[in-house]
Amino acid sequence: MSLRILVWNEGRHEQINPDIAARYPTGIHGAIADGLAALLPDASISTATLDTDEEHGLSADVLAETDVLLWWGHIAHDQVRDDVVARVRQRVLGGMGLIVLHSGHFSKIFIDLMGTTCSLAWRNEGERELVWTLKPSHPIAQGVPHPLVIEHQEMYGELFDIPDPDDLVFMSSFEGGEVFRSGVTFTRGAGKVFYFSPGDEAYPVYFHPDVRRVLANGVEWAAPAPGTALPAVSNPKRGWFAP
Amino acid sequence: MSLRILVWNEGRHEQINPDIAARYPTGIHGAIADGLAALLPDASISTATLDTDEEHGLSADVLAETDVLLWWGHIAHDQVRDDVVARVRQRVLGGMGLIVLHSGHFSKIFIDLMGTTCSLAWRNEGERELVWTLKPSHPIAQGVPHPLVIEHQEMYGELFDIPDPDDLVFMSSFEGGEVFRSGVTFTRGAGKVFYFSPGDEAYPVYFHPDVRRVLANGVEWAAPAPGTALPAVSNPKRGWFAP
Amino acid sequence: MSLRILVWNEGRHEQINPDIAARYPTGIHGAIADGLAALLPDASISTATLDTDEEHGLSADVLAETDVLLWWGHIAHDQVRDDVVARVRQRVLGGMGLIVLHSGHFSKIFIDLMGTTCSLAWRNEGERELVWTLKPSHPIAQGVPHPLVIEHQEMYGELFDIPDPDDLVFMSSFEGGEVFRSGVTFTRGAGKVFYFSPGDEAYPVYFHPDVRRVLANGVEWAAPAPGTALPAVSNPKRGWFAP
Amino acid sequence: MSLRILVWNEGRHEQINPDIAARYPTGIHGAIADGLAALLPDASISTATLDTDEEHGLSADVLAETDVLLWWGHIAHDQVRDDVVARVRQRVLGGMGLIVLHSGHFSKIFIDLMGTTCSLAWRNEGERELVWTLKPSHPIAQGVPHPLVIEHQEMYGELFDIPDPDDLVFMSSFEGGEVFRSGVTFTRGAGKVFYFSPGDEAYPVYFHPDVRRVLANGVEWAAPAPGTALPAVSNPKRGWFAP
Repeated sequence: MSLRILVWNEGRHEQINPDIAARYPTGIHGAIADGLAALLPDASISTATLDTDEEHGLSADVLAETDVLLWWGHIAHDQVRDDVVARVRQRVLGGMGLIVLHSGHFSKIFIDLMGTTCSLAWRNEGERELVWTLKPSHPIAQGVPHPLVIEHQEMYGELFDIPDPDDLVFMSSFEGGEVFRSGVTFTRGAGKVFYFSPGDEAYPVYFHPDVRRVLANGVEWAAPAPGTALPAVSNPKRGWFAP
Repeated sequence: MSLRILVWNEGRHEQINPDIAARYPTGIHGAIADGLAALLPDASISTATLDTDEEHGLSADVLAETDVLLWWGHIAHDQVRDDVVARVRQRVLGGMGLIVLHSGHFSKIFIDLMGTTCSLAWRNEGERELVWTLKPSHPIAQGVPHPLVIEHQEMYGELFDIPDPDDLVFMSSFEGGEVFRSGVTFTRGAGKVFYFSPGDEAYPVYFHPDVRRVLANGVEWAAPAPGTALPAVSNPKRGWFAP
Repeated sequence: MSLRILVWNEGRHEQINPDIAARYPTGIHGAIADGLAALLPDASISTATLDTDEEHGLSADVLAETDVLLWWGHIAHDQVRDDVVARVRQRVLGGMGLIVLHSGHFSKIFIDLMGTTCSLAWRNEGERELVWTLKPSHPIAQGVPHPLVIEHQEMYGELFDIPDPDDLVFMSSFEGGEVFRSGVTFTRGAGKVFYFSPGDEAYPVYFHPDVRRVLANGVEWAAPAPGTALPAVSNPKRGWFAP
Repeated sequence: MSLRILVWNEGRHEQINPDIAARYPTGIHGAIADGLAALLPDASISTATLDTDEEHGLSADVLAETDVLLWWGHIAHDQVRDDVVARVRQRVLGGMGLIVLHSGHFSKIFIDLMGTTCSLAWRNEGERELVWTLKPSHPIAQGVPHPLVIEHQEMYGELFDIPDPDDLVFMSSFEGGEVFRSGVTFTRGAGKVFYFSPGDEAYPVYFHPDVRRVLANGVEWAAPAPGTALPAVSNPKRGWFAP
């Protein structure tokens, strides 16, 4: 069965800012989906936004048929319904892959899965970002240059308040001298989570071929194996050595 | 300044079950506090319960003067006020140490800090638990026998649905053959968190001298260094290399 | 290109002990290779032993054409040539997968890659071993029962003196009450390393279908992506931001 | 009993290069020892070099009375005797703390404990280094500014070929845009290991007050608890649950 990918985007910048709408004519979600489609031709890819429907396009039925969810949000985190966030969290713990992008570090779903504030330092002056690979054997790093160069980007800097990741795959520096853990993986329940910071509404980062490679790698890495699930909570009546 | 410790206990079992009240005549919190007092004579130790006051004895003023909080709960997790849980979480992220005990794995504060279900397998048949040290250089393991033997205990077994810990200090086995990550540490924000599973209302585990040693070690390890705090969220106006 | 697997076995027990020769008529390596062949029908599988040739069947040419090497040794670790060990280590750091089995914990190659003594507690009384999955989303755990039950085994117990693993996939208990980190992964350079303890010359463990599943999963996980290599040591003449 | 610290330095640059001798008139070891003495007034601090005696000042008796060893080397790694390296490694695994400095990344002892090549990228053009704290609750980070600024330094860059550290305490950036894991901790056996990269013969880094604070913190963190030792290798005759 082909991989089922859902690209979720808040989708508000594109409605209110003509520059951003011109930069991402099919939405940030559209640019991400196009990049994935080019690299994962067998995948089934769909998109949804905050305004898709009352459930933000994230009904129980939709999530049940999603293997990997990508999440982009920025100015409307608080408008995402709490019950929808709880549903997404439940699916991640049950095995669905989750890729959180850029300003999604402050999304409800990411904070709920991390347990921390997820705050960071930032500055938007169009600096060059260098993304260095720290774990060359990791599936997400395959085919990615060292460093990956993004000419103009918003700066995200440490301290990034997250728990220690399972793997620190990428580390960025910026012209201002800051560093940032820009590619980190986590396991939560039976689900794999990948946070990747490059990508901003003000720069055409999601058209960058190396960034698209990272996202495609991330999706393949985060996809659950067939049948993945947490063991049901159990109360075994006797032990393995008992008579 | 001496270490300021607060032992928090739900405190309901002792009110409704005469056997438990007889086992822990000053409450589970009383037994824990006595154990700490014997090993940490310079510490300032206080206790609170769900019924101490409307804020469960966890007002902002009390938390501001607490270095390490120990948490025991079981049958009334849902009665802990959400705003109090949010306040405790905020203090942990700001540097307060937190030690979560036994059935506290299902407390709101632990689930919020972990991001997972924190579920596990269990069985209560009074089995022998062996607690093995896996990291002998860790401060929490100092002076603890290998294995630490508890003659009668409730079984907690894997899969324990938690994120990968920073350190896996202790690992238990039970007569039934199950294993359990019984002593694990986490960092959340500027705060240190230690979960330790041995300890149950139905067994006198908190009078066990080796268990008391672990708890005293845990408190000393979790205590913040003077002045510990997360960097404030920052938006630096220029970089370190900029003119 | 199909996966190229080399199963290496010391091969001495089979020469000197008729019981073991009867249990493993094509050698321990033969049993392992048969199990892999059944589950990985497209793979190219070969075997070698200490006595294959002067280089123990591990010439530079052979290693250059190996994606994943499995290693079983016990009573002749000291007879493995140091220059061959150095060559294997070099290949692992360059990306070749390595799976170290059972008593291979004391092999030169494992000690060299770990940096520790790799010692453990042991007892051979044919006890039941239960292998519990602690990371159900890990590729190596797919299709493996929880617990995996081995009726008769040598006991390996903590303290297992290894560095903290990347992932603690499996944890075993034994009838005697000991616990053991029985399935652990490491990254060394560009190479992936998996240690799996079940498997002994005195028991038919390598015919166990669930053990065979673990080994096949381990091989697939440890295989390098095409083109995997460590970046060459570099002395860049100028920086990315320099004029 | 006071903390017993031994600062070891290769000590060759100072003999052959007048500039370096002028910069470090009592040797690099002398500058490090002075910095520690100022911050740890109760400690007992001694020094040794490659040429102290035939055993490089690292006899079994000396090591037996050392709690924490600091190691600086660069141009004479190959002149350190293998049997002395094996002795140091044995002591670290038994609990002695080890702090490896700067170009010591290529020392025999560090490579032996890591298992990897420990290679990195480098460039010596006197660039500014910024050392950012990624784990503010870690004992080694207490009292250290964020970032710690070193005006002129040799650049060390990723990929730094080391195993995943226990804790990534510090991360550096350089004017050229490179990043480097400049402060990392490891556990090996019962011993704690801290690698800290700032510090070079060509710059007066070991007189920098913040660098001295890091080294003093590192020594206190790495010191073994009284009685620390690995469990002896054991072959228990019966299990805990056996009759």
